[in-house]
Amino acid sequence: MDARDVKIFLEAVRSGKLSLDAAAERLRQLPFEDLGFAKIDHHRALRQGHPEVVYARGKTPKQVAAIVRGMLRAGASHNILVTRADRKIFAAVKRLARAAKFHELSGAITIERDNAIHGKGLILVVTAGTSDIPVAEEALVTARSFGNHAEAIYDVGVAGLHRLLRHRKKLTEARVIVCVAGMEGALPSVVAGLVAAPVIAVPTSTGYGSSFGGLAALFAMLNSCASNVSVVNIDNGFGAACVASAINRS
Amino acid sequence: MDARDVKIFLEAVRSGKLSLDAAAERLRQLPFEDLGFAKIDHHRALRQGHPEVVYARGKTPKQVAAIVRGMLRAGASHNILVTRADRKIFAAVKRLARAAKFHELSGAITIERDNAIHGKGLILVVTAGTSDIPVAEEALVTARSFGNHAEAIYDVGVAGLHRLLRHRKKLTEARVIVCVAGMEGALPSVVAGLVAAPVIAVPTSTGYGSSFGGLAALFAMLNSCASNVSVVNIDNGFGAACVASAINRS
Amino acid sequence: MDARDVKIFLEAVRSGKLSLDAAAERLRQLPFEDLGFAKIDHHRALRQGHPEVVYARGKTPKQVAAIVRGMLRAGASHNILVTRADRKIFAAVKRLARAAKFHELSGAITIERDNAIHGKGLILVVTAGTSDIPVAEEALVTARSFGNHAEAIYDVGVAGLHRLLRHRKKLTEARVIVCVAGMEGALPSVVAGLVAAPVIAVPTSTGYGSSFGGLAALFAMLNSCASNVSVVNIDNGFGAACVASAINRS
Amino acid sequence: MDARDVKIFLEAVRSGKLSLDAAAERLRQLPFEDLGFAKIDHHRALRQGHPEVVYARGKTPKQVAAIVRGMLRAGASHNILVTRADRKIFAAVKRLARAAKFHELSGAITIERDNAIHGKGLILVVTAGTSDIPVAEEALVTARSFGNHAEAIYDVGVAGLHRLLRHRKKLTEARVIVCVAGMEGALPSVVAGLVAAPVIAVPTSTGYGSSFGGLAALFAMLNSCASNVSVVNIDNGFGAACVASAINRS
Amino acid sequence: MDARDVKIFLEAVRSGKLSLDAAAERLRQLPFEDLGFAKIDHHRALRQGHPEVVYARGKTPKQVAAIVRGMLRAGASHNILVTRADRKIFAAVKRLARAAKFHELSGAITIERDNAIHGKGLILVVTAGTSDIPVAEEALVTARSFGNHAEAIYDVGVAGLHRLLRHRKKLTEARVIVCVAGMEGALPSVVAGLVAAPVIAVPTSTGYGSSFGGLAALFAMLNSCASNVSVVNIDNGFGAACVASAINRS
Amino acid sequence: MDARDVKIFLEAVRSGKLSLDAAAERLRQLPFEDLGFAKIDHHRALRQGHPEVVYARGKTPKQVAAIVRGMLRAGASHNILVTRADRKIFAAVKRLARAAKFHELSGAITIERDNAIHGKGLILVVTAGTSDIPVAEEALVTARSFGNHAEAIYDVGVAGLHRLLRHRKKLTEARVIVCVAGMEGALPSVVAGLVAAPVIAVPTSTGYGSSFGGLAALFAMLNSCASNVSVVNIDNGFGAACVASAINRS
Amino acid sequence: MDARDVKIFLEAVRSGKLSLDAAAERLRQLPFEDLGFAKIDHHRALRQGHPEVVYARGKTPKQVAAIVRGMLRAGASHNILVTRADRKIFAAVKRLARAAKFHELSGAITIERDNAIHGKGLILVVTAGTSDIPVAEEALVTARSFGNHAEAIYDVGVAGLHRLLRHRKKLTEARVIVCVAGMEGALPSVVAGLVAAPVIAVPTSTGYGSSFGGLAALFAMLNSCASNVSVVNIDNGFGAACVASAINRS
Amino acid sequence: MDARDVKIFLEAVRSGKLSLDAAAERLRQLPFEDLGFAKIDHHRALRQGHPEVVYARGKTPKQVAAIVRGMLRAGASHNILVTRADRKIFAAVKRLARAAKFHELSGAITIERDNAIHGKGLILVVTAGTSDIPVAEEALVTARSFGNHAEAIYDVGVAGLHRLLRHRKKLTEARVIVCVAGMEGALPSVVAGLVAAPVIAVPTSTGYGSSFGGLAALFAMLNSCASNVSVVNIDNGFGAACVASAINRS
Repeated sequence: MDARDVKIFLEAVRSGKLSLDAAAERLRQLPFEDLGFAKIDHHRALRQGHPEVVYARGKTPKQVAAIVRGMLRAGASHNILVTRADRKIFAAVKRLARAAKFHELSGAITIERDNAIHGKGLILVVTAGTSDIPVAEEALVTARSFGNHAEAIYDVGVAGLHRLLRHRKKLTEARVIVCVAGMEGALPSVVAGLVAAPVIAVPTSTGYGSSFGGLAALFAMLNSCASNVSVVNIDNGFGAACVASAINRS
Repeated sequence: MDARDVKIFLEAVRSGKLSLDAAAERLRQLPFEDLGFAKIDHHRALRQGHPEVVYARGKTPKQVAAIVRGMLRAGASHNILVTRADRKIFAAVKRLARAAKFHELSGAITIERDNAIHGKGLILVVTAGTSDIPVAEEALVTARSFGNHAEAIYDVGVAGLHRLLRHRKKLTEARVIVCVAGMEGALPSVVAGLVAAPVIAVPTSTGYGSSFGGLAALFAMLNSCASNVSVVNIDNGFGAACVASAINRS
Repeated sequence: MDARDVKIFLEAVRSGKLSLDAAAERLRQLPFEDLGFAKIDHHRALRQGHPEVVYARGKTPKQVAAIVRGMLRAGASHNILVTRADRKIFAAVKRLARAAKFHELSGAITIERDNAIHGKGLILVVTAGTSDIPVAEEALVTARSFGNHAEAIYDVGVAGLHRLLRHRKKLTEARVIVCVAGMEGALPSVVAGLVAAPVIAVPTSTGYGSSFGGLAALFAMLNSCASNVSVVNIDNGFGAACVASAINRS
Repeated sequence: MDARDVKIFLEAVRSGKLSLDAAAERLRQLPFEDLGFAKIDHHRALRQGHPEVVYARGKTPKQVAAIVRGMLRAGASHNILVTRADRKIFAAVKRLARAAKFHELSGAITIERDNAIHGKGLILVVTAGTSDIPVAEEALVTARSFGNHAEAIYDVGVAGLHRLLRHRKKLTEARVIVCVAGMEGALPSVVAGLVAAPVIAVPTSTGYGSSFGGLAALFAMLNSCASNVSVVNIDNGFGAACVASAINRS
Repeated sequence: MDARDVKIFLEAVRSGKLSLDAAAERLRQLPFEDLGFAKIDHHRALRQGHPEVVYARGKTPKQVAAIVRGMLRAGASHNILVTRADRKIFAAVKRLARAAKFHELSGAITIERDNAIHGKGLILVVTAGTSDIPVAEEALVTARSFGNHAEAIYDVGVAGLHRLLRHRKKLTEARVIVCVAGMEGALPSVVAGLVAAPVIAVPTSTGYGSSFGGLAALFAMLNSCASNVSVVNIDNGFGAACVASAINRS
Repeated sequence: MDARDVKIFLEAVRSGKLSLDAAAERLRQLPFEDLGFAKIDHHRALRQGHPEVVYARGKTPKQVAAIVRGMLRAGASHNILVTRADRKIFAAVKRLARAAKFHELSGAITIERDNAIHGKGLILVVTAGTSDIPVAEEALVTARSFGNHAEAIYDVGVAGLHRLLRHRKKLTEARVIVCVAGMEGALPSVVAGLVAAPVIAVPTSTGYGSSFGGLAALFAMLNSCASNVSVVNIDNGFGAACVASAINRS
Repeated sequence: MDARDVKIFLEAVRSGKLSLDAAAERLRQLPFEDLGFAKIDHHRALRQGHPEVVYARGKTPKQVAAIVRGMLRAGASHNILVTRADRKIFAAVKRLARAAKFHELSGAITIERDNAIHGKGLILVVTAGTSDIPVAEEALVTARSFGNHAEAIYDVGVAGLHRLLRHRKKLTEARVIVCVAGMEGALPSVVAGLVAAPVIAVPTSTGYGSSFGGLAALFAMLNSCASNVSVVNIDNGFGAACVASAINRS
Repeated sequence: MDARDVKIFLEAVRSGKLSLDAAAERLRQLPFEDLGFAKIDHHRALRQGHPEVVYARGKTPKQVAAIVRGMLRAGASHNILVTRADRKIFAAVKRLARAAKFHELSGAITIERDNAIHGKGLILVVTAGTSDIPVAEEALVTARSFGNHAEAIYDVGVAGLHRLLRHRKKLTEARVIVCVAGMEGALPSVVAGLVAAPVIAVPTSTGYGSSFGGLAALFAMLNSCASNVSVVNIDNGFGAACVASAINRS
C-alpha cells in the first residue's frame, strides 16, 4: 500500500464506497511495512549520516564494483566505505570513482563525498603493539568516514608504561577511546583507569598458541577491572568505530 | 488505536473532518501493533491450540500459583502446563485447581481442559537409558498437553541392539520420533536409520567426566550420519515436544 | 540363507529330512539379515522416494563419475544429487548425463529423473545475510530433488526487521521453514515467533573472530527462546532439507 | 615528597642551598606519585561524580559495614552503592545509614546523597525475558546512582516481536540503551537495528545446557550483525550501566 | 514367535498346511528377535561370566535394593557388583544378602557368588597419587568381580621416579595395566614405556584450576607418546576394569 | 660401565685393589643405565617383535631415507614401517629397498622382513564410513607389520544397521576389534554391544562444523555406554593397531 | 640391597664365594633403587631444605594429624607446612604441636622448626585486588616456610596505575616477584615491564561469567607481552612460591 | 620538560621570577616522563644487557632489514637477535652485517657483538622428541644471545626413561632448565622431580587431533605434580629463554 494506494483507500472511505467496518477490517490486515516503515528506516539512515558500507571480503572485484556503482548512481552525498578490500578491488573501484582512496594498512577504500565533522568530540584510537595497527587503521578510517575527528596513538603496550603515560593528556581529551590490543589484551584496563570517557576494546588475533586467535585478549577485556570498558568482536575495528561514532554523535 | 479508535478515525475521514492528506499521514505514523497485530498474534496462538506454559524453575510456589490463577481466570479452554516444578509448587497449584496433576518423574504439572487430539499421527518418545527418562517424560507430558497422541519406549540404548530392534514396528508407525539420549548420544542415528519420519534428538546431561553435562551427546547428534535428524538443547524435552507437535499438527 | 536356501530348508522340513527340533534350532541361529532385512530396508528407500546422493568433497572427478555411472546404470527413476562439487566434477558428470545441471552457488549437481512433487506443502528457505546463500542454495536444491515445492527469501537479517516483516505472509504459508544464519544466529528465533510451522535452523560458518566458524550461531540457535526450533550442524543445508522433506512428506 | 616537602625543596633552590644541578638531578629521581598523581586521580573521581561502590559478594555483613562506615565518615556527597548484597548485609548497612535502601531484585543497596541528574539523556534498560530482570535492575539502580535518568522495559524478547515493537518510540528516545538477554542473546541485534544510539549488550547466565552459563548469549552479542553494539561480561549489569553513564555524561 | 510358535509353524510346513512359498514369505517377515536373538545375547553374557552390575548414583537405597533382589531371585551364579554406592545403600543391600561387602574407598558393593579366576594373567592397577585411589579401587573391585587376579600399586607419580621404578618387576609381570592419574596425567606414558602389555589409562578429576575436572589429564593420555596406551572416560575405573577384563579373558 | 667394565671392577674387588668401602661407594654412584638397563630395554623390543617405525610427516624424503638406511644396515629381522608418507618419500625408500611397498590409502610404506604371525587371534578393523578408510588402512597395515592376522570391514555405519549386522559372525570371531568412525562416533558402542572382545575406538577427523576435527566423535567414544571400549587419539590408526597388537600377543 | 647388603655382596666377591660372572650377573639384575637412589633423592630433599608439605583439602582432620605426627616423630628440622586447611584441621594439629600457627586468610598451617633464611634475596608477592589475597597469602606463607625473606603488596591492580607505581622501588629490589591476579590478569605484564627480575604469574579464580574460573586470567598471562613472565596453575599460590624459592636459592 | 627546561624552571625559582606556590603547582602538573622516566627505563635495559630483538614473522625482508640497520647505526654493543625469520630475511640482514648468522632449525638470526657470559650458571634446554627441536633451538639461541652458557639435550621423552636418566648428572648441574615437549607434555614433571632447579616448561604444537595445537601439553604442564615448574606459551622458546636468563642473571 504505497502513497497512491493510501489515497484511493481514504477516498473510498470518504465517498462511502467502503463501509466503516470493511475499512476497519482492511486497516487491521495491512502489512505495516506498507505504512512507510521502510521509509522511516531510510530516514533513520539519513539522520545518522552513516556512510554506505561494503564488506569486501569474499566478494570479487567485479561484485564490489557493481555495488559501488549502484551507490554512486543513487547520488546521495554520504561517504562510501569499502572494508577488507585489496589492491585488485581498489583498481576496480578506482575506475568508477577517481576520488577513491586506498588505505593500504587496513585494506579500506574510501570515496569522500561529505567532509563535514558530525561528531562532537575526538575519537582516539590506541594500540598495544605494531601488529594491531591494521585493525586500528580500519577503526580510524571508519570513524573519519562517519564524520568524526579521529586520531591514533600506536604501540603503547602495558609492558612499557612510560610509552603510554607520555600520552596521558591526549587520552583525557578524547570523548571516546577505541583501544586495540592482542596477546593478553591488558591495554583497555590501563587506559580506562586513566580516563572518564567510554573505552571500546577491540581484541586482535595477533599472537599464537594459547592466544587462540584473539580469544585470550577478548576474555581479558570482558573481565576488565575498569568499569568503563565495553568490547566488540575480535579484529572488528569497523564495529568499534561504529559504536564510537554512535556515542560521539549522540 | 483499538477498535473504537479505528472507528472514530474512519468516521472523521468519512465526515471530512480529517483531510485525506492528514489521514494518510496519520496512518503512516500508526504504530503497527495498534492495527491489531497483537490480536493476529493471539489468533495464531488460538489456531495452534498450544497449552499455556509456565517454566517454574527459579520461581516460588507463590509466583507460579499467581500465574496459574491468572490463566484460570482468563477462562480459555487450553490445557495448562507447568514445567520443572516440585511438590511444593504442585501443592500451591493444586489448591487452585483440583484437576491439577503432578508428573513426578519430569516435575511437570498439568491441568487438563482440552482432551481433544489435534495431532495427525503418533509422537513416539524413545530413550537410550533409564536416567534419560525424566527428560523423556517432560517431552511426553508436553506432547500430550499439546493435543497429540504420544507413546514412549525406554531403555533401548545402542549397546544392546536387540532391545531397540524389538520395537521396529512401533518405530515405523510414528509420525515423529523424539529420541532422548545422554552419554555418547548415538541412539538418534540408529533410530533415524530405521525410519523415514523426522527424528528430534534431545541430548541429556546424564553421564560424567568428558560428557560435559550433555555436550558430548549434543555434538554427536549434530554430527549424525543419518539425514533425518535435527537437535534441540540439552535436557530440553519440552522443546523437542513443541517441535514434534508443530510437525504433527501441520 | 538366500531365497534358494530358504526353499531347500523348508523342503527338508516338509520331507521330514530335518526333524522339527533341528529345524527350530536352525531357525534360532539364523542371522536375521538372511531373512530379507536388506530388502525391507531397500523398500523403505523406495517408499521415501529419496534421490540418490553423492557427497563429492574429498572425491576426485573420476571417483564421483564412477559412482554416478553406477546409479545411472541401476536405472532407477530417482533424482540424482551430488553435493559440494566443483566445475571439474560437473564436467565429468556432464559427460555421463547430458541432463546434469550445475548449481554454482551451492556446488550441487542434479540429474532430474523424477519431477513429481511428493511433499504436501511449501518448504521455505530463509537467510539472514547474503553470505549465507550458498548453504541456503544447498538446502533449496536438495529439497527440490527430494520432490518438494521449495522457495527462498534471502537477506532478511534481524538488524533490519522491516526486510523480514515484509515477507510475513509467505512465512505463514510455509509448511516447514529452513532458516539459515551465521554471526549471532538470531533469525530462527524471530522467524519462529511469527509462524506455527516447525523451523529447522542452520548455523553457517560466516563471520570471524568469536563466531568460531559458526559455533556462536549454533549455540544461539540451540538456546532459542522460540519453542518450534530444532537445529542441524553448521553449514549443513543438505541435512536441513532432508529433515524438512521428511516433515513435508509425512 | 608531599606538599610540605615540595615547599622545602623549592625554598632550598631559591636560597641557593641547593645548586641548580643538584636540584635538577633530584627532580629527575622523584617518584612521580609524590607529585600529587593520586590527587589528580582523586580529582578525576570528583569530576566524574561517580558514586562510591562496594562489591559485596564474598564479603561478610561486618566487612561491608566497615567499608560503608568509612565512606560515610569521609563526608563526601556522592551516592553510595553496594552491589550483590543480601538482606543480612542490608541490615548491617541500615544500622549505619537510615537512608539506605535495599533493591531486592538486584541485591543492590543505595544510600542517596546526591539526587542531581548529571547525564544528558535517557538510559533505557531493556530485557528479553523475566529471568533477565535481576541483571537489568542492577544496571538500572547503578545508572540512577551515577546521576542518570534511567527507565526500563522488560520481557520484550525476539520470539514475540510485537511486544518489542510496541515500545519503538521509547527506544528511539534513549541516548544509550542497555540490552539484557540470556539464551540466544538476539535482542541487542534487533534493538540496535531500530535505533541510532549506542547499545550496550549484557549477556545473562539464564538458560541451561548449551547456554553454558551465558556464553552462548555472549558470543551471539559479540557477533551481532548490527554495528552499534558493544558487549560487557555475563551478568555484568553494573558494568553496562557504568559504560552507559560514561557515554551519557560525555 | 516363541518356542511354541516356532513348533506350530514348522508343523504347518511339514503337514503341508503352509505352502513352501507362504512359509518362505513368513520367515522373511519375522522380526529377528523372535528367533531367540535375546537368548543368544543372554548366552553371550553367560559366556563372558560378567557380574551383574548396578550403577547406584542417582538411585535411592530402595531402588538399588529392588534391583539387587531381582538379581538374587534369578538365582544365577554370577557375582553382583553395585558401583558408586554409599553407606545407606549398603545397609539396604546388606539386609538382602548377608554376604554383601562394602568397599568404602570406591563406594562399591560386592556380593560374591563365584570366586573362580577366569582371567589368564594379572591385572595391575597403578595410581599416580593418593587422591586417585578411589577410582583405582573401583577398578580393582570390578576386575576381581569379573574373575580376575588383580593387584594395586599406589602413589607412584612421575615426579618421584624412584617410587615407580622400584616396582618395575611387578609392572612387567602384568598382563594388562590400568593406570590411574589426575593432574598432568603423565603416568601412563611412563608406565607404558616400561612394559609390553596394553595400558588402559584412566584420567581422574583430581586437581583444580586448569585441570578442568580431569580434562587436562584426559588429553595428555590421548596424546601419549607411548603407543600401547588407550584411554577411558574421566574417573571411569569401572570401564577400565571392564576393558582390562575383556583383554585378560581373551 | 659395560660388561668389560663390570668385570674389571669386580676383579679389582677380588684382588683387593679396591677397598670394600670404595667399591660400595662406587656402586652407589653408578648410573643405573650402565647396568644394562638399555640392553634390557632392547630385549623388550626384541621380545615384542615390534617393527621399527618412522613417522614421516614433517620429514623430507632424504631424511626418511637416511633413517631407513640405518635400519637396514642394522640388519635386524623386524619389519620396517613408515607411516604418513607420500609418493616422493616412497620413491626415496624404494631406491634403498626393492621390497618396499606403498600403501596408498594410508600413506604407509612397509618393508617386510618377517612374515611370521605372532598374534594369537584376529584383529578386525571396522569403519563407519568410506572417508574413515585411510585411518583404518593405517591400522590394518600397522597390525600386519606387527605380525598379526588382520582383516577389515568398511562402511558399516550405524544409520544402516543391516550393513553391520550382516557381519556379526566375523565380529564375534575377532580377538580384538579396532573401530574407526568420525561424525557422531557411534559405531564402537554398537559393535561393542555385539561382542565380548575389547574394542579400540579411533575417532576420525572426517565431518565438518561441530565435528571439530573429530572432537565430537572422540567425546562420544569416551562416553560409550558399552563397557568394553577404550579410545585412542583422533586419526590415530597406528596407535590403535599398537594397542590391538599388544593385546593380541599377550 | 642396603648398605649392609652391599658389604656382604662385596665380601662374597673378595672371598671368592661369588664367581665374577655370577657377581656381574647379579649387578645387572639389581633394581637401581637398591643402589641408594632413594637415599640420593632423600639427600636432594635435605639439600633443598624444603619444608615437609601436606595438602589438606579432601583429608579429614584425623588424617592430616596422623601425617603431621609422622613428620614430627621423624625429628627432622625442616618446617612443616599444611596447605588448604581449616579451623578443625588446625585444632587437630595444634594438639600435636603447640608451635603450630594458623594463617586464616590462606588456610595454611605452619610449624616452624627452622627460621634460617636460605634464599638470597627478596620474594615479593603482589596482588591486583583484595579478592586475590588468599592465594597471595598462600604464596607468602609458603615462601617463608621455605626459608625466604618475603613481603607482600596488595590491591595494586592496573586500572589504578598510581597505586602500583607508588611501589616501584620495592618492585625493583625484589629478586623474584610472584604476581597474583584474577579477572583480566593484566598485572604481571605491567609489573614485568617495570623490573628485570623473573615474574611468576598466578591467575586466580576470582571473577564471574567469562572469567571461567580464572581461565581468562590464565590465558592473558600466558600471552604476556613482557618476556620475563612464566605462569603456574589457577589459584596455585603454593606452586608459585615453590618456583620462586627454587629461583631464590639457586 | 627536558634537561634545558628543567634548568630554566629552576633558575626561575632561584631568581624569584616564579613564586614558590606557582612552582609547586607546576611541579605537580609535570608529566612524570619529563622527569627522565624513559631514561631510567633505558638504564634498566642497559643493566640487563638484553640483546635487541626483532620478531620477524609477518614482516617483509625489507622491513626487518630497516629495523636491524637502525640497531646497527645506534652503535650499541648488545647482540642483535631476529626470531622466526627465513632464508630471504637472512639474506637481507646478511647484506647489512657480514657477522650475521642464520640458525636454520629455529629460524633465528644472530649478530654477535658481545660474547661475554653474564649468566651465573648453566641453562639446560631439554626436549621430549625430535619435533620439539625447533622450539628448543629458539630457546638455545636466545639464551646464548642474552649472554648465558646454554646446552641442550634432545629426544629424551618419558616413554623411554633410560634415555633421560642417562643425563641425570647434567640435569642436576643446570641452574635453570628449559623443558620443551609436545603431545602429553609429561617431560617437565619428570625432569623437575630429578632436580632442585627451577624448570621452565614450554609446550609445543607438535601432535595432532586432541593435542589441539599444544593445548593438551600446556594444560598438562600447568597441572604438573612437581612444584618447581612454571610455564610459558605454546612454542614460546624465546620467552622461556628470557625467563631463564632473568633467573640466571639474578
